Amino acid sequence: MFYKRGIIFVISAPSGTGKTTLCEIICKQIPDLKMNISHTTRPPRPNEIDGINYYFIDRQKFQEMIKKNQFLEWAEVYGNFYGTSRKNVEKLLIKGYDVLLEIDTKGAKSVKQIYPESVLIFIMPPSIEDLEKRLYKRDEDSETIKKRLSKVQEEISQMENYDYILVNDDLQEAVKQLSCIIFAERLKTSRIDKEQIKKFLKIEEG
Amino acid sequence: MFYKRGIIFVISAPSGTGKTTLCEIICKQIPDLKMNISHTTRPPRPNEIDGINYYFIDRQKFQEMIKKNQFLEWAEVYGNFYGTSRKNVEKLLIKGYDVLLEIDTKGAKSVKQIYPESVLIFIMPPSIEDLEKRLYKRDEDSETIKKRLSKVQEEISQMENYDYILVNDDLQEAVKQLSCIIFAERLKTSRIDKEQIKKFLKIEEG
Repeated sequence: MFYKRGIIFVISAPSGTGKTTLCEIICKQIPDLKMNISHTTRPPRPNEIDGINYYFIDRQKFQEMIKKNQFLEWAEVYGNFYGTSRKNVEKLLIKGYDVLLEIDTKGAKSVKQIYPESVLIFIMPPSIEDLEKRLYKRDEDSETIKKRLSKVQEEISQMENYDYILVNDDLQEAVKQLSCIIFAERLKTSRIDKEQIKKFLKIEEG
Repeated sequence: MFYKRGIIFVISAPSGTGKTTLCEIICKQIPDLKMNISHTTRPPRPNEIDGINYYFIDRQKFQEMIKKNQFLEWAEVYGNFYGTSRKNVEKLLIKGYDVLLEIDTKGAKSVKQIYPESVLIFIMPPSIEDLEKRLYKRDEDSETIKKRLSKVQEEISQMENYDYILVNDDLQEAVKQLSCIIFAERLKTSRIDKEQIKKFLKIEEG
């Protein structure tokens, strides 16, 4: 209740680990935590809505935004561009929200450099077999799956850069763990407004 | 599930903040978290049992233990001695338990020096008025209450040394926050056994 708002939580995970579902659930559960909406040049999947799931923009617009340094981080993944708008994140922080960013390991590193107080969380698949299964379920073609799986090992090697590691073995358990990380981070002494505490306790300065 | 066990959680709070109740509840909720039983020369209160609430020992035995360096930390508080046995804490850690220590701000500092990986949590009373009320309820005499209240400000000035600060305004909320800190700490990358993760994921070393 005393924490200065505006913590950035970065979630990374090999694709197919279920991080999007996890992020959606956690944002519904914690109302003062908002997910940033990324910009992408990837065409929308069925059911995806512009301004809700992503800001869908064309490559020219994306390149312009890169040139104008409007991204906190951006990446080209499997031929598509994804980026996190600085302005959007700052807007959420100023409004007093904590911000959830769902980005890859390289992006996470950039964010940590710009916001050293941000919290990096890595989500692990319960096993490689499970990850494979989940990707097949998602109707990805086998070439894409192969590419994704080969990237998993590379991503997992980056886990040392993260503050927390959790395993999405059981979705409900993972949601609980993730919300605990968020609540615990808000209680960190470094994030607490001590003046507010003194006022609350009516402690006079000596 | 991958963390190397044996985290020491130190809880400090001005007396009357409800930390003992809080610690008891949390240890019941989290079975692999054990509260260390302190040694004291204070006479037992009604309902207190030797070996459960404290190890009640006489001053001579306590002095001997100090001489033999058998305490992780010890303090004289209002004329009575309290101490945390090194051997007892080590026994719990070796058995694979996380250990909860309910000690004062000076003791917390000593423990952090010996175990830098320990987690220090400061519990705040919701207000000074509330603290006063709780102490009166406990039937303390007004001289003791006066002494305790004058110590509160001194203790609160130490909160910067703590990793987390929480307010025991609502007991249920405080229990939830405390358990979140414990669960989140177990997910910290620095406490995770990476070899176990690799084995779990069946990742071969290149």
